[in-house]
Amino acid sequence: MNESETGCLQLTESGKLRHLLTLRGLRRDFISDLLDRSEHYQHKPGTPPSRDKALDGRTVVNLFFEPSTRTRASFELAAKRMSADVLNLDVNMSSRKKGESILDTIYTLQAMQADVFVVRDASAGIPEFIARNVQPYVSVLNAGEADVSHPTQGLLDLLTIRQHKQNLDGLTVTVIGDLKHSRVARSLGEGLSIMGPNELRLVAPPELAPDMELYPQGVLVDDIDEAINGADVIMTLRIQRERIKGKSSLMTNHEYLQKYGLTEERLSRARPDAIVMHPGPMNRDVEIAGPVADGPQSVITQQVNNGLAIRMAVLAAVFESRQGQ
Amino acid sequence: MNESETGCLQLTESGKLRHLLTLRGLRRDFISDLLDRSEHYQHKPGTPPSRDKALDGRTVVNLFFEPSTRTRASFELAAKRMSADVLNLDVNMSSRKKGESILDTIYTLQAMQADVFVVRDASAGIPEFIARNVQPYVSVLNAGEADVSHPTQGLLDLLTIRQHKQNLDGLTVTVIGDLKHSRVARSLGEGLSIMGPNELRLVAPPELAPDMELYPQGVLVDDIDEAINGADVIMTLRIQRERIKGKSSLMTNHEYLQKYGLTEERLSRARPDAIVMHPGPMNRDVEIAGPVADGPQSVITQQVNNGLAIRMAVLAAVFESRQGQ
Amino acid sequence: MNESETGCLQLTESGKLRHLLTLRGLRRDFISDLLDRSEHYQHKPGTPPSRDKALDGRTVVNLFFEPSTRTRASFELAAKRMSADVLNLDVNMSSRKKGESILDTIYTLQAMQADVFVVRDASAGIPEFIARNVQPYVSVLNAGEADVSHPTQGLLDLLTIRQHKQNLDGLTVTVIGDLKHSRVARSLGEGLSIMGPNELRLVAPPELAPDMELYPQGVLVDDIDEAINGADVIMTLRIQRERIKGKSSLMTNHEYLQKYGLTEERLSRARPDAIVMHPGPMNRDVEIAGPVADGPQSVITQQVNNGLAIRMAVLAAVFESRQGQ
Repeated sequence: MNESETGCLQLTESGKLRHLLTLRGLRRDFISDLLDRSEHYQHKPGTPPSRDKALDGRTVVNLFFEPSTRTRASFELAAKRMSADVLNLDVNMSSRKKGESILDTIYTLQAMQADVFVVRDASAGIPEFIARNVQPYVSVLNAGEADVSHPTQGLLDLLTIRQHKQNLDGLTVTVIGDLKHSRVARSLGEGLSIMGPNELRLVAPPELAPDMELYPQGVLVDDIDEAINGADVIMTLRIQRERIKGKSSLMTNHEYLQKYGLTEERLSRARPDAIVMHPGPMNRDVEIAGPVADGPQSVITQQVNNGLAIRMAVLAAVFESRQGQ
Repeated sequence: MNESETGCLQLTESGKLRHLLTLRGLRRDFISDLLDRSEHYQHKPGTPPSRDKALDGRTVVNLFFEPSTRTRASFELAAKRMSADVLNLDVNMSSRKKGESILDTIYTLQAMQADVFVVRDASAGIPEFIARNVQPYVSVLNAGEADVSHPTQGLLDLLTIRQHKQNLDGLTVTVIGDLKHSRVARSLGEGLSIMGPNELRLVAPPELAPDMELYPQGVLVDDIDEAINGADVIMTLRIQRERIKGKSSLMTNHEYLQKYGLTEERLSRARPDAIVMHPGPMNRDVEIAGPVADGPQSVITQQVNNGLAIRMAVLAAVFESRQGQ
Repeated sequence: MNESETGCLQLTESGKLRHLLTLRGLRRDFISDLLDRSEHYQHKPGTPPSRDKALDGRTVVNLFFEPSTRTRASFELAAKRMSADVLNLDVNMSSRKKGESILDTIYTLQAMQADVFVVRDASAGIPEFIARNVQPYVSVLNAGEADVSHPTQGLLDLLTIRQHKQNLDGLTVTVIGDLKHSRVARSLGEGLSIMGPNELRLVAPPELAPDMELYPQGVLVDDIDEAINGADVIMTLRIQRERIKGKSSLMTNHEYLQKYGLTEERLSRARPDAIVMHPGPMNRDVEIAGPVADGPQSVITQQVNNGLAIRMAVLAAVFESRQGQ
């Protein structure tokens, strides 16, 4: 599947959002509009909410073939705040061996009048495969696809950056960590390519380095201090501790923090107004020092808050694309 | 428990539906009314729904002592679309050893003002046992009881047949597969007996043949081709692959398809307007060939769609039976 | 943490309920008001409910680090009946090793605009730890904390007693069973101390006797018959059968019933209008004889019903405490 085909698949003929599978192929003004729209769903913490009725009577199915707590909760709350009915299905991987059985599950839920499938899967291509097979009045939202794509995460990261930097071009963005397996980094990289020219610097342990063909505008930097120098945005990625310990290098958590962790000292090399991001969940004092995670430059909880607004905006957009159908 | 007693148990004194435990003992016009009523809840896919408020503030408890995805989802969505609060309880079998502890669970949930229990259980008699012990203002819906009964499935199958054949008598209906363990077939057989005279032909591997006393109007047919010949309706039943492989006969999936599967060639012996049904989930190319499952005569997804409408109609009916209490 | 500090933590400056962590430190009239308020949420079983909109658009997160069916269901239904969105998170203990990771979970959910955390945990101090760290507009409700506290259970028990005895002082209350591990008994004891002078008699097998410093107004009674003599209220506590069997004394269920169970004969020593309580789930014919559990003096299902009303009243109270913020 090449880029333009997937891009076509997710838009209606009149250019509206039908599915959200990837940021690739979306136009700059399209993404800007989505970010603008999500500002409408921002909610000042602690103030009484007003119930949004946009999805009243609609059904959103969370179809998670891979475990997730926070992304699922975010989609669930976004849908409920818009008055949708939500069905959570945690599908055991072992119960499906072949593509057909996924489709039978989809056909069944579609026959129960599911309007939106929110799909997370450990295999590449599943959200698109489902999108190609649903009825015209059903939408698919990618909630995390293997190491390939996590478009709502990409959008919430763009929104967070825009809130602090006012625009999304001319920035220096540094991403540090397990880039080899990171769908978060890929969606952010794709978004930054579309929105700007931006400078994207990538830092990873040698065994977790990314395929640089996936980051045409990025540059792999060996020296972490150099990569942070003068950055506007620094994102650290989650390291699975098991993975570190399993390495022949036998790098401990402490060694990882020393070599690749975002410490206060390292952060001081960035621009004074640099923001610190993390997609969560964090391993404190592994990829990020506790004081940095909780410090004044951290926007980590703001990312979570923006995630809800982005998901509400995306849900609103896909239902809007059906008007007149 | 004989038939008339159970029949009495599930109706109020004025003949309205209080519990739905079995189709046995229900009158023909009673079932016709339920099917008519469910047409009201049919919803054209893709059109914006209107929120039904009939169960607003009511509580429906899904009490599943046996795992289920699709039936539970169907009841959950039916209840939510009528504005009920839904509580899902997947109760581990091991946590109840004796009848008393089920009752304590029921009494507890009843004291939390549960209005309806949707019960699935691997043991015969549990839904009725619960129905005998709840308060007068509480209803029990059987969502699958051992190999005995699955009345909402029976109703959705009758509805699907009626939508294609206009009436429910004078039909030739062929059911193929594991009839020994099939509560779906039993409820369909009971429904067809009430609604018609209909010809019911049953086909099963010898080791999965039914107790024919349970099908007084049915006939066991050895030759599958003969059983399909001239049929108006063909239902294939799910085969659990483990069960096939465990047999001394060592029938493979392919051999099962050859001997008992509904292939295109076999289907061609039925009436040209015959419909193909399956209660799901399907094993493609075991009990049913893929092209038949997806072919023009298949009404399998329509069955799922009808399941939602039937469950909404049944929920509406049991609440209506309380008016004036 | 001493008593007055925790007391301060859970009230706003103007003396309203912000968190509910413990009954300790609450004033008598404060508890009376909560009980009065809960009468408003009493609902005659079987009558059509009216949907309460007090929490419309609000989000209640059930954060259960310890498994629970009935308490979670009670909080879930209480919140849903007030139109809140409910998010159920059953958090695997193994996924958090340190205090920090609980806080990151809390910060994340808070950033998704959770308004209330309902917390159950097997470790002492967790609800208070969370309460100390949430934003000013977030409330924490203790739904069971180790062997320390279960304040909504305490309130529902007080309410049940008040409904039968008209007032909450001058009573003789006997609690029998595993007092060593019982947060239910501790919250009841705290509540009875605040509301009255009351006589609190405790009976336990020697190896399950409580630390009497926790019951300053209680008295440990060796002879169960003497403890029941003339009592107004008798509460039996759940015994985990595994625990009994594991003891060197090798007491069987039957022996436990003989020595510490509430039999009809024993109950006859109490006042004729004595009520029998149990926090559930019950082991019939172990700590309580079946005929007593189901007898006319049993108020066990009324406790469950009151639990829902109490939780609704507590939810209403914590949202009311924010007015004008």
